[in-house]
Amino acid sequence: MDLYEALYTTRAMRRVAPDPIPVEAITLMLDAAIRAPSGTNAQNWRWVVVTDKPTIAALADLYREAWRVLNETVYAGADRSANPQMQRVFNSSQWLADNFQDVPLVVMPFHRNDPSGASIYPAVWNLMLAARGQGIGTTLTTILGAFRNQQVAELVGVPLDKGWSNAAAIPCGYPLGRWGVAARRPVEEVVYVNRWGEEPGWTVPEPMWSSES
Amino acid sequence: MDLYEALYTTRAMRRVAPDPIPVEAITLMLDAAIRAPSGTNAQNWRWVVVTDKPTIAALADLYREAWRVLNETVYAGADRSANPQMQRVFNSSQWLADNFQDVPLVVMPFHRNDPSGASIYPAVWNLMLAARGQGIGTTLTTILGAFRNQQVAELVGVPLDKGWSNAAAIPCGYPLGRWGVAARRPVEEVVYVNRWGEEPGWTVPEPMWSSES
Repeated sequence: MDLYEALYTTRAMRRVAPDPIPVEAITLMLDAAIRAPSGTNAQNWRWVVVTDKPTIAALADLYREAWRVLNETVYAGADRSANPQMQRVFNSSQWLADNFQDVPLVVMPFHRNDPSGASIYPAVWNLMLAARGQGIGTTLTTILGAFRNQQVAELVGVPLDKGWSNAAAIPCGYPLGRWGVAARRPVEEVVYVNRWGEEPGWTVPEPMWSSES
Repeated sequence: MDLYEALYTTRAMRRVAPDPIPVEAITLMLDAAIRAPSGTNAQNWRWVVVTDKPTIAALADLYREAWRVLNETVYAGADRSANPQMQRVFNSSQWLADNFQDVPLVVMPFHRNDPSGASIYPAVWNLMLAARGQGIGTTLTTILGAFRNQQVAELVGVPLDKGWSNAAAIPCGYPLGRWGVAARRPVEEVVYVNRWGEEPGWTVPEPMWSSES
């Protein structure tokens, strides 16, 4: 697969089929993940690959609890009716919460000595891009670590006392939906040149990849 | 460029030439960056693209201060003589500190409402992979934000009171060295299956890309 097609079309793919992922694809995803740089090349990461059904079912229960907490706190009072795009994100997130137990693979990266996250999320994203190249959909979720860190640690046996913490839970599976370029605010609205607030004199001439190409 | 070649060979490229980067490549890097997912698709990011020589020179001075702080604190007492790889990372980091003012382009992503970093570093890494596809070397540095956040904000005009903070400074340029697959601890040593400590029964059969292929 072309690099730019992957960069433009690897979006959150929450609705996935229960069909198992071949071990060859899993090893490839991990082997690509660990090529990413980390601060001082410390590679302070561990990756727990979960395919065991009862463990995924237990993670699903914790995920639903975390999802409920998120909706009762961060999202409390959010008016989605005015924002169709936010409603779509909510609907597919709800689908994931309802169906998490049927996801065939969950990858959970852990990190330590990485307060900014700069040493784990490039590797996480490499894994997700490598999955995209194999036609496997993924989504980066952080609510398990944010709201059920202790329970996840007990379930999976993470030595929290050694400084490890969960960076993400990444459900993976063959997508039920289509790949495509996600809607984003254009570069011209989020980029400044040389100083905050100074708009670029240029525009993006043509994307390197589009769904029509 | 093939996706897997990019995933395997995008390493920290600190030694870069002062030759300018064409604006077409800069816009491409940014357009790829903003395709990455972010929590609730909030896209709570701004990207300051610095090509102005005096601003880069001022950033270079701050970078050297931050590099000195890092060496006097986090790295204090580190014995690099026993670890040739750590010595190489140090040498190229020192090169960057000494030559930062000659880097032709520095991209500085800012984020807010993103405590884990999960909503900015996938986009940051997209930018670095898109650069790789154009033959442009990058390195993800975080010490300016960690040790000189206030000074950077004053220099570039960042509204810290609105919650924005610096996620990285990414020096970019055409590499003086070679591209290649960086040395990493193998997957088998950093991956567990289903539970922490449970080694995988499999090995990685063959990487999707190698320098020999």
